[in-house]
Amino acid sequence: MNTETPLKIYSHSYRLIAAQCNAQRELAPAALIQQIIEVATEHADLLGIGFKRLQDDGNLWVLSRITVELKRYPKLLEEYTLSTWVEGYNRHFSERNFEITGADGEILGYARTIWVAIDMRTRRPADMSGLASLAVTVCDKPCPIAKQGKIRPIDPPQTVHNYTFRVSDIDFNRHVNSARYVELILNQMDLSTFDDYYLARFEIEYKHETHFDDEVEVCSAFADEALISAIVKDDTTVCVARSFMEPRTKPNDIQ
Amino acid sequence: MNTETPLKIYSHSYRLIAAQCNAQRELAPAALIQQIIEVATEHADLLGIGFKRLQDDGNLWVLSRITVELKRYPKLLEEYTLSTWVEGYNRHFSERNFEITGADGEILGYARTIWVAIDMRTRRPADMSGLASLAVTVCDKPCPIAKQGKIRPIDPPQTVHNYTFRVSDIDFNRHVNSARYVELILNQMDLSTFDDYYLARFEIEYKHETHFDDEVEVCSAFADEALISAIVKDDTTVCVARSFMEPRTKPNDIQ
Repeated sequence: MNTETPLKIYSHSYRLIAAQCNAQRELAPAALIQQIIEVATEHADLLGIGFKRLQDDGNLWVLSRITVELKRYPKLLEEYTLSTWVEGYNRHFSERNFEITGADGEILGYARTIWVAIDMRTRRPADMSGLASLAVTVCDKPCPIAKQGKIRPIDPPQTVHNYTFRVSDIDFNRHVNSARYVELILNQMDLSTFDDYYLARFEIEYKHETHFDDEVEVCSAFADEALISAIVKDDTTVCVARSFMEPRTKPNDIQ
Repeated sequence: MNTETPLKIYSHSYRLIAAQCNAQRELAPAALIQQIIEVATEHADLLGIGFKRLQDDGNLWVLSRITVELKRYPKLLEEYTLSTWVEGYNRHFSERNFEITGADGEILGYARTIWVAIDMRTRRPADMSGLASLAVTVCDKPCPIAKQGKIRPIDPPQTVHNYTFRVSDIDFNRHVNSARYVELILNQMDLSTFDDYYLARFEIEYKHETHFDDEVEVCSAFADEALISAIVKDDTTVCVARSFMEPRTKPNDIQ
């Protein structure tokens, strides 16, 4: 698609159905991350810089980092909206941000994502400087949450779980689903933790793809007021994450 | 709600997003079952026989059985529709059926579900004979798939996996999500099996609820051309299922 006035901010509204809730009757963080990926894909397609356009040059977008920071999550049956825009880009990656608003337009939080273009065949970074249409998509809407910092896994970890990826973990690209890693990392904590605390900020960096039947270790340790986690396959770090939990100011109002 | 001409057949259309696909780029069976539950809930609410109405009498609907039979599953980006109606009911349970149609109205398959009303406090079957509004909802649209038969687990099983339920497995009612059992059962098979075969018919009977941190064994064995599975917690059978796999008539056309 080529248009003189591209839609710099794209919005998608949802109504929170039971299937996407956690036990606290809020949007589950992994479901939010799935929707962030969905909305990013929709906007990129609309701008003509989506997977289809990159495919013409033999390239594809790979999600490298996500940071989300929310003061509260959408509640069961609440209408909420994800709005997204491109903050900037260079030859190798683009920065795409999100604002999450609740039913009455209340800002619930923000997200930052980094997408890297890679060559499909070599799996090496692609050069995006030829994709001129990226320039006109940049938007100066502010995203008032800190960028993701370097995440260093703690050695030795305090909590280790083994997991083998099965059929239900594999996505349409035959890799493990990006949201599934988020579930495995949050599963390092107990249900009672999520009753008393909520995930106020979450950072994840995806480093390597995994596949059906791969065995991984999910390793975590608390440090600097956050749960630092790494998913490791043999000696390869698949992803690293940092989860900041904040006390709920009032008991979770389960109906 | 009280109306003289209730909407006997209720339909909900979807467009298949990547997040709900399996590795074969079709609607994942567990996602279909989640949508069957969603559409049942929407229709029951509309008819005034939903959870809210039963709650007034101290009762609630519990899903007891699902049977699905499809000649093919909706494909990535395809528009498809779930239509549902009540086949019949008696004092203790109601039978609700579904038709699944593809983009051009092609019938892809059907589903049968059985919902039991129980007393919230005693967890014993409730008597629904006083709920007169059920009578006017019954619809004689045919559902040309066989009802679910008795499923007897095979002893000893051929395949056993252990699993402990974590935060991401728990639903808004603080039980393990009904669709998660379906994933654990289908995870007894390999990715290559789903490349060569598809789940033509699936039957599951839910017998007992499980909770966070419960440890279960998923046990399966092939018998009578089906994979018979049981999820067992200590000596309690949580659910039993029968999966009929059919060869794909042509190689799965992954784009």
